[in-house]
Amino acid sequence: METPDNATPTGIAAQDWATASAVPQYRAAVIDLLGALAYGELAAFERLAEDAKLAPTLADKAELAKMASAEFHHFERLRDRLAAVDAEPTTAMEPFARALDDFHRQTAPSDWLEGLVKAYVGDSIASDFYREVAVRLDSDTRALVLSVLDDTGHGNFAVEKVRAAIDSDPRVGGRLALWARRLMGEALSQAQRVVAERDALSTMLVGGVDGMAAGFDLAEVGRMFSRITEAHTKRMAALGLAA
Amino acid sequence: METPDNATPTGIAAQDWATASAVPQYRAAVIDLLGALAYGELAAFERLAEDAKLAPTLADKAELAKMASAEFHHFERLRDRLAAVDAEPTTAMEPFARALDDFHRQTAPSDWLEGLVKAYVGDSIASDFYREVAVRLDSDTRALVLSVLDDTGHGNFAVEKVRAAIDSDPRVGGRLALWARRLMGEALSQAQRVVAERDALSTMLVGGVDGMAAGFDLAEVGRMFSRITEAHTKRMAALGLAA
Repeated sequence: METPDNATPTGIAAQDWATASAVPQYRAAVIDLLGALAYGELAAFERLAEDAKLAPTLADKAELAKMASAEFHHFERLRDRLAAVDAEPTTAMEPFARALDDFHRQTAPSDWLEGLVKAYVGDSIASDFYREVAVRLDSDTRALVLSVLDDTGHGNFAVEKVRAAIDSDPRVGGRLALWARRLMGEALSQAQRVVAERDALSTMLVGGVDGMAAGFDLAEVGRMFSRITEAHTKRMAALGLAA
Repeated sequence: METPDNATPTGIAAQDWATASAVPQYRAAVIDLLGALAYGELAAFERLAEDAKLAPTLADKAELAKMASAEFHHFERLRDRLAAVDAEPTTAMEPFARALDDFHRQTAPSDWLEGLVKAYVGDSIASDFYREVAVRLDSDTRALVLSVLDDTGHGNFAVEKVRAAIDSDPRVGGRLALWARRLMGEALSQAQRVVAERDALSTMLVGGVDGMAAGFDLAEVGRMFSRITEAHTKRMAALGLAA
């Protein structure tokens, strides 16, 4: 996954942070990225902890609390990395607070099953995005992003529960399919807002330092979103939720 | 702290779990204790995560989220121990849910400073209680309780913030002193409810297996609560909150 076109990393992927960050625009873009990821993890912590209240049993509550706690530890690693590269973590996170807060406000689950679907969808989209972005990064930043990614996948416990709920009442499937579509729509809408506002970050996401030289390519951003949406659609279908 | 009267543990403290748990009443009392502590940690996780929303800055929010995450890991250890001694964790926790939920409902902070004081007071009382109870336990259960205790003290970050707030506006001190008193009052009232309802647990808390033979001693429960209250009062005074 790290080098889709080549066995050997080239360009930015062959450089370490010390070399790559000498380009001010790359440095700014990575700090933007780490700020966005860090705020995303902290916001996910808050929302999962909140949604844990909807759990029907103590064991279910503990599962969602476990995901929340894992997100918090991701946040810690990203924040510590920001501090290590002499960026002020709060300053780096703030530009992304509104989009992420709005996402969560617009998608507050109204019951436990919606909470489970959101936890699973959120976890999966985050994994896809981390994987997409990793290939654009210098070796040090990539190692961090991949190590956080390695620790995701806590959302899988949700799959079994959602499947059981649909089996026992197929009408639930229709409602949750709509919900999953709404989650993805809201995520894309907020992501597009971020893309529009953060040029350096967006340019790096689609082409790394080489892409920066070539300039911002909106079509490539679109393709990345398409790949993530497609993977989401397949996962939903596998879960019995036709999207 | 483990053996306040003696250098060498005697009675129950000299036994391991395999030996001590052969007494059915001791076994039941420890399962009650672990259930109460586990639910307490899970409830603390939830409330701290909720109270993190009141934080004025992202860094403050991260501090409270860190405490919440630490409580979750305590919960995991206690729950895993229940499972390891063949107790159903949910069944063990349920008898304590009402008292702990009521405590948190009655003491929802109305602002960030109240949240900080609650986090600090809760963390400190929990430490005191873990230390009190550790001396009553068999060596295996004691090791677990002390290892969870070792990992507390996250509440100290709150002290500095509260002190700064009082310095800049002394009237804040009066309000928070009342608040701290209310927290302690509510905690004692819920603890007394638990004591009244859970004879085996209460008896063990005040005398271990030896105390069980001697029967339940309400005065000794009262003395334990007094010691914890006294330590609380000293801490509040040190914080500038005359109780």
